Amino acid sequence: MKLTEEQNKEIKEQQSQQNKTKRVTAPELEKILYDAIPILDHGFIRVVDYMGDDTSVVQSARVSYGKGTKKVSTDSGLIKYLMRHWHSTPFEMCEIKYHVKLPIFIARQWIRHRTANVNEYSARYSILDKEFYLPEPKHLAAQSKSNRQGRGDILEGEKAKKVLDLLKGDAEQTYNNYETMLNQRYDGSTIDENSVGLARELARMNLTLNTYTQWYWKTDLLNLMNFLRLRADHHAQYEIRAYADAMLDTLKKWVPITYEAFMDYRVGGTEVSAKGKVILQKLINGEDISIDNSGLSKREWNELMISFNLNDRII
Amino acid sequence: MKLTEEQNKEIKEQQSQQNKTKRVTAPELEKILYDAIPILDHGFIRVVDYMGDDTSVVQSARVSYGKGTKKVSTDSGLIKYLMRHWHSTPFEMCEIKYHVKLPIFIARQWIRHRTANVNEYSARYSILDKEFYLPEPKHLAAQSKSNRQGRGDILEGEKAKKVLDLLKGDAEQTYNNYETMLNQRYDGSTIDENSVGLARELARMNLTLNTYTQWYWKTDLLNLMNFLRLRADHHAQYEIRAYADAMLDTLKKWVPITYEAFMDYRVGGTEVSAKGKVILQKLINGEDISIDNSGLSKREWNELMISFNLNDRII
Amino acid sequence: MKLTEEQNKEIKEQQSQQNKTKRVTAPELEKILYDAIPILDHGFIRVVDYMGDDTSVVQSARVSYGKGTKKVSTDSGLIKYLMRHWHSTPFEMCEIKYHVKLPIFIARQWIRHRTANVNEYSARYSILDKEFYLPEPKHLAAQSKSNRQGRGDILEGEKAKKVLDLLKGDAEQTYNNYETMLNQRYDGSTIDENSVGLARELARMNLTLNTYTQWYWKTDLLNLMNFLRLRADHHAQYEIRAYADAMLDTLKKWVPITYEAFMDYRVGGTEVSAKGKVILQKLINGEDISIDNSGLSKREWNELMISFNLNDRII
Amino acid sequence: MKLTEEQNKEIKEQQSQQNKTKRVTAPELEKILYDAIPILDHGFIRVVDYMGDDTSVVQSARVSYGKGTKKVSTDSGLIKYLMRHWHSTPFEMCEIKYHVKLPIFIARQWIRHRTANVNEYSARYSILDKEFYLPEPKHLAAQSKSNRQGRGDILEGEKAKKVLDLLKGDAEQTYNNYETMLNQRYDGSTIDENSVGLARELARMNLTLNTYTQWYWKTDLLNLMNFLRLRADHHAQYEIRAYADAMLDTLKKWVPITYEAFMDYRVGGTEVSAKGKVILQKLINGEDISIDNSGLSKREWNELMISFNLNDRII
Repeated sequence: MKLTEEQNKEIKEQQSQQNKTKRVTAPELEKILYDAIPILDHGFIRVVDYMGDDTSVVQSARVSYGKGTKKVSTDSGLIKYLMRHWHSTPFEMCEIKYHVKLPIFIARQWIRHRTANVNEYSARYSILDKEFYLPEPKHLAAQSKSNRQGRGDILEGEKAKKVLDLLKGDAEQTYNNYETMLNQRYDGSTIDENSVGLARELARMNLTLNTYTQWYWKTDLLNLMNFLRLRADHHAQYEIRAYADAMLDTLKKWVPITYEAFMDYRVGGTEVSAKGKVILQKLINGEDISIDNSGLSKREWNELMISFNLNDRII
Repeated sequence: MKLTEEQNKEIKEQQSQQNKTKRVTAPELEKILYDAIPILDHGFIRVVDYMGDDTSVVQSARVSYGKGTKKVSTDSGLIKYLMRHWHSTPFEMCEIKYHVKLPIFIARQWIRHRTANVNEYSARYSILDKEFYLPEPKHLAAQSKSNRQGRGDILEGEKAKKVLDLLKGDAEQTYNNYETMLNQRYDGSTIDENSVGLARELARMNLTLNTYTQWYWKTDLLNLMNFLRLRADHHAQYEIRAYADAMLDTLKKWVPITYEAFMDYRVGGTEVSAKGKVILQKLINGEDISIDNSGLSKREWNELMISFNLNDRII
Repeated sequence: MKLTEEQNKEIKEQQSQQNKTKRVTAPELEKILYDAIPILDHGFIRVVDYMGDDTSVVQSARVSYGKGTKKVSTDSGLIKYLMRHWHSTPFEMCEIKYHVKLPIFIARQWIRHRTANVNEYSARYSILDKEFYLPEPKHLAAQSKSNRQGRGDILEGEKAKKVLDLLKGDAEQTYNNYETMLNQRYDGSTIDENSVGLARELARMNLTLNTYTQWYWKTDLLNLMNFLRLRADHHAQYEIRAYADAMLDTLKKWVPITYEAFMDYRVGGTEVSAKGKVILQKLINGEDISIDNSGLSKREWNELMISFNLNDRII
Repeated sequence: MKLTEEQNKEIKEQQSQQNKTKRVTAPELEKILYDAIPILDHGFIRVVDYMGDDTSVVQSARVSYGKGTKKVSTDSGLIKYLMRHWHSTPFEMCEIKYHVKLPIFIARQWIRHRTANVNEYSARYSILDKEFYLPEPKHLAAQSKSNRQGRGDILEGEKAKKVLDLLKGDAEQTYNNYETMLNQRYDGSTIDENSVGLARELARMNLTLNTYTQWYWKTDLLNLMNFLRLRADHHAQYEIRAYADAMLDTLKKWVPITYEAFMDYRVGGTEVSAKGKVILQKLINGEDISIDNSGLSKREWNELMISFNLNDRII
């Protein structure tokens, strides 16, 4: 990731602010506020604003439950209780805003999370940077044979090299032709003074999906956790997981108690179906239970065994 | 409005915070942060947190439009442009949180605005305060004769007194019976040690709709303006307008430039239909136009004339 | 529940429709379309429109996953897979609309589900019916001693009678005074021709929270299941559960395969935290594990044992 | 647009359905149900399901306003009233579902409308069709000189040809390399039996933004109108306007009365600011008013004059 001089200057200015406020602050998050945390080859995330902290969750819960919450003596106990019982509204009382630079094909996954506010760089108005994502060789994996949406073995050296050459060659060529159609280079200079350029809103269609875009993305704590739960999961595509993992770190700095409960109950937790509950119960009680009398399909059975690390029962 | 000693102490503590932050701050809003601004007889609003200011709107717009926005030289010019052309997403980049005490029948109108986060005091968990709304005599109006949802003339002294007596008597009686059913008084004391009380989630159904409740209500700047546009309007019921008016003041302190544009383009503005446009155009050009050849109903015609203050053309 | 003659006539007319359509239909749901299913003493739910069925869920999933879904040979297998892995968007492709009559204090819980469309009867425009909820004696429970929001033992005969007398007396009195203030009776007749009535938007504040209101409520299948999961749960207040239970029946008639998967994976299922997983795994493997070395609080431990029906391990 | 044999067969089957229903139907919409209406060179829209019609809007409004709406005698009068006064919830009571095939760069604009349900074809699971958008020469316009996001003059023959050659060449090359990386052709055949292909979730990043994708898109009538108001507007990019225009036709067939009111009050209407109102009023009254004493910027003044067709007052 290489920031422009202009961007570096803007970040420095933002970080030099020393404002006084009566609002609650999250000291650990303040330390990295505005920092550009590198992701992939040209991307980044930056926390650019936030509202509330762990005490805001607690305060809202105590308004809801009134004197009823006095019994739960600690903030930590209350937050764990709220998380365990899927109380949602107290976690909506905190808000965070990120500035994100990311490849377009990842932006298309990300935007499916609708309960968020977004301002994306518009290629109707302005010219996109000449930056596109090229995976590191260790992330160039073959299509999984067992999983329609997953990755299998890493490609060998020669094959990987060929893929990278194709990706790089095509991205450069399509970007160069983008400039040619615009009759303008990224730095703003005109290519041919005697000619006119195609409208930006049209020329952009020539770019490949690994071109980087950027946006401001703002959401509340509940929806951030919903996002992270799905996107920091091992089923998620590596490229979006890279962003989610970095955001998990910011979550920890922002609301450490909520983070703890989130890792225990959501990220590390699992769901068990009605049928699955009976099976686990029988296993615990030493009763005779196998896939044959379980009522589960082979797939369901194995998913259950895997999620409880009962590897010798996988069939 | 009378705050309890406990509430006054909490507000004092919140206001005595002096935190440092690198976030942008809204100095005028900081001055009234946590203050309880009285509304109606027992209600209040308090701004308890916020995120962003006018520059956050500008910053997001500039990310979207990139170098395209450099032409609009001032923040004020850009915000006015965004408001005029109904750009919405930059205004979603700011967030505000209120603590509100309000009668239940007003809460029921308010909650219809769905794009907001809410934590309401729960009468399943806790006992509601003995506080209910009684209108001032000047707000005790008869049903409008022309408008199904509006108010007409103010009630005369005797009639007003009778109404207030009924409202007060019924609210007190139902609250007392609420305590009786709970076998508990608001201060927590048990009424009859040898008896048990009805479940709180049931007893509450005996309360009247003017009983006060309270909640934390959080929304973004765009949806706050949508709320205020409808609820500070003269068609809105007086009791919710009283809250909206006080919130307009907080909007002004928070984002003064956005406030200015909002008052000009939304609150003070109007919509004109396709047919209405033709009529106004003809009036300006001195052409012959009257309700008969306008294609409008009498009601539409008059609404148009009223909104442009053309009172002598009302029929 | 007593429908007015007018309502009965409207329902008959709606049910006599015999339209042809190329849309998919849900034959079992068609049978009860528009029927008023009684809930509580004066409430009802009616399915008044719907869109899509189980095949719509499948069709959308197959568009998303393309040829990738061909392996899952049956609709039922695919729907179970989607439910198990928390795929959400295919379930958003079906829509249902209910007409509901319900007490105001229940409406206030219900409306917290924001992802739905609502048209409620407006007491600013019109006069509310003289109908209020009075619980059956078997639902008149004392406040739970262990659970701040729950119910305990059923009240004895004398106490129950007293509560009912209070509820009934107060509801009738406040309704009568509502009419007095309006100077109008529900049937539309004026009480005193020489007097004027208070504005409806004000008079309504005198009503108690067990007064019935009604609304049209429309949501998609995913959000309907989110609603039912919370409101058909045994933690939900009985009065809203009565509605949710009836709606579960309509779900079964509408989308029987989805219903099946929903009951297995959501309603009957449970979540297990990261710590809980380790404990269950150890129990299954016969390892030494008790609350002391579990890292769980007593409350967490017991909740885990209860949800797996391991009653002899509760402490 | 060329549908595959498989698609044509599916459409025929869907259209041959003759189901009976007690639901309301929209006869004109039924006639074109499932039809693929061609848009651009390879795109289409198809209405694949709907719920409700004009009478559903009316019915919901009448539930809200109760006896209060009896005065408005006709459905048409009531719908016009609702539209004029920005009543929103009755229009949320109807729902429609489209199947859309569209270029990715248009999908990225479209998805910004968040209050909708979407199931998109997933290029993680399946291989995208070899179809990409190439504009007709008459739509190949130069960048506007006055408007940062608009189009100016049409490109001349030579220049247009060069642009089309570049777009076509790059799209074909990147698609071919996509197949090479996948080691698979669109028809499913393997290219090199002795090799493995790159994971689909990675290979897709090589495609250009004019590649076609497809989705199911479902929304309610209110949000459909919000979408159409913005996207059928002359400020919208031609390529999305082409979709919006075709959808306007389906709106007309579905809810003809609502369509009429929508065209008059929204599409053909305009907003006037507080300052603008005073200016129009003065113009009507023949008072002296010009840009100099108007308080408007040149831009605002001209926008006002243009929207009222007062062309000789533009400066």
